[in-house]
Amino acid sequence: MTGPVLALAGGVGGAKLAWGLAQILAPEELVIVVNTGDDATFHGLHVSPDVDTVMYTLAGLANPETGWGVAGDSSQVLEMLARYGAETWFQLGDRDLALHIRRTELLGQGKTLSLATQELSRSLGIEHAIVPMTDDAVRTVVNTEEGEMPFQVYFVKHRCVPRVRSVTFAGAGEAGVSPGFDRALNEAGALVFCPSNLYLSIDPILSIPGVRRRIASFQGPRVAVSPIVGGEAVKGPLAKMMTELGREATCTAVARHYVGLCDVLVIDEADGASAAEIEALGIRADVTPTVMHGPEDRIKLAQRVRELVGY
Amino acid sequence: MTGPVLALAGGVGGAKLAWGLAQILAPEELVIVVNTGDDATFHGLHVSPDVDTVMYTLAGLANPETGWGVAGDSSQVLEMLARYGAETWFQLGDRDLALHIRRTELLGQGKTLSLATQELSRSLGIEHAIVPMTDDAVRTVVNTEEGEMPFQVYFVKHRCVPRVRSVTFAGAGEAGVSPGFDRALNEAGALVFCPSNLYLSIDPILSIPGVRRRIASFQGPRVAVSPIVGGEAVKGPLAKMMTELGREATCTAVARHYVGLCDVLVIDEADGASAAEIEALGIRADVTPTVMHGPEDRIKLAQRVRELVGY
Repeated sequence: MTGPVLALAGGVGGAKLAWGLAQILAPEELVIVVNTGDDATFHGLHVSPDVDTVMYTLAGLANPETGWGVAGDSSQVLEMLARYGAETWFQLGDRDLALHIRRTELLGQGKTLSLATQELSRSLGIEHAIVPMTDDAVRTVVNTEEGEMPFQVYFVKHRCVPRVRSVTFAGAGEAGVSPGFDRALNEAGALVFCPSNLYLSIDPILSIPGVRRRIASFQGPRVAVSPIVGGEAVKGPLAKMMTELGREATCTAVARHYVGLCDVLVIDEADGASAAEIEALGIRADVTPTVMHGPEDRIKLAQRVRELVGY
Repeated sequence: MTGPVLALAGGVGGAKLAWGLAQILAPEELVIVVNTGDDATFHGLHVSPDVDTVMYTLAGLANPETGWGVAGDSSQVLEMLARYGAETWFQLGDRDLALHIRRTELLGQGKTLSLATQELSRSLGIEHAIVPMTDDAVRTVVNTEEGEMPFQVYFVKHRCVPRVRSVTFAGAGEAGVSPGFDRALNEAGALVFCPSNLYLSIDPILSIPGVRRRIASFQGPRVAVSPIVGGEAVKGPLAKMMTELGREATCTAVARHYVGLCDVLVIDEADGASAAEIEALGIRADVTPTVMHGPEDRIKLAQRVRELVGY
């Protein structure tokens, strides 16, 4: 091994594999770079949903039923905010809100999102590095048949119902990778794409200038875990979006998305029949159980990924 | 009657009389102008303790045990903020925090504190006008034997223990009265000093350029209710401060503070013996029960005040 494993992650699915990797890799052996295209301001507070989910998951605080938010949280603040006329379609529990209040305060003091994330992670006892993809504002915009909408409006307010035409990343052209992401791209010995939404979690990371090229020319092993299992997304709107974007909701279509960016695609046993098609694209297919029901599944999948990257 | 009653108030004691006045005067007959010298920023949120207390009291939400905060509030957010390393000596309940979050958002949108207060008050169903004394930053600073400290540090963190040498109001020189206060000073038919701390609640209001002069030349009846009863403050550090500042903790000393500013000082039956001394200062002493144990006491005192101002 020549450097840490660089794992690219979105929210819930990515956080589960990241948690698994964190159980079997030492803090210096893993850097988790997280999508921030979902970031949004609610009630004047900076919410970074994927970073939050990864932090809560690694800290053991995540709500096991939803995968996001804090387990056992209450909603006193939101009830009062509604009374003050604030829009409250975005769920924010009381314990969760503390994170956004504190982050917003740190950002207001001039700290970068990277530094704020580092400070907050450490406060929660997290030893592994959680790094936002950028310290600049990159915002995912979903272009639907009902018009263009910010990611959270599409995802939470409209529950992913509008048909998607395309996804863009406002601000990406002017954004730079965060210092931690830059360092990891230079120093990492292997790269892992966690099983996250291709369009909403992985593409925002790839949208930052230079990232796609640096991953394409990355020297170590590159492994992706398919977020599609048996023609369906394990969680979220990915399968629906693939269909709306004119693709099939299959592991082969996932592989096509990763051509030139990864060497091995881990697919579930349910998709073993796609292996030949995937390999025809120049990507090795590795068939293993990928659905993570509980902690043991996460660790098993992480172990398989570690083997595949040769750690 | 020629205009509304203008009531000047600080926190808990002032809020009680303001509540009483609001029960017997129509919304157009009362303007409550509130001290903002206690305002402070906690966790990046603008907290306006006296305005909050008056709002919660008029909305029927105030914690009856403390007089401030929201009844039955929880503290999930603060517990997590402590975990993130934030200083949490200033108590902020979950339901209470929503007010500060929303106010901070409104201020961030460019609204003045007056407009934010108006919007928040109305959301809580309050019909009477609650007006901050100024929309500018006036901050009470307490000069103690242990050094100079911002009001909340003295009041909450150090529980008023350090001996006070003087009190100053940073920013007062450059501050202006809020539009609602200005209008009330022009249009009010009577003026009431609620039973609030002379140095920490009334003086900040008087520190804004022009206010002392305008009250001195105010044409209608001016009535103050003594915050000192039987040589003690009904609540808070007033009696202790009076002693530290070289004054006696008596109604006569209260009257001396109000010379030129009020025509009648309402004193409790416990202080009837001071009446002659007070009248020798040119202020009429009105002896009536002033301690407000419950809603009925508040209304009775408000009724007496209304009689005294001739409404």
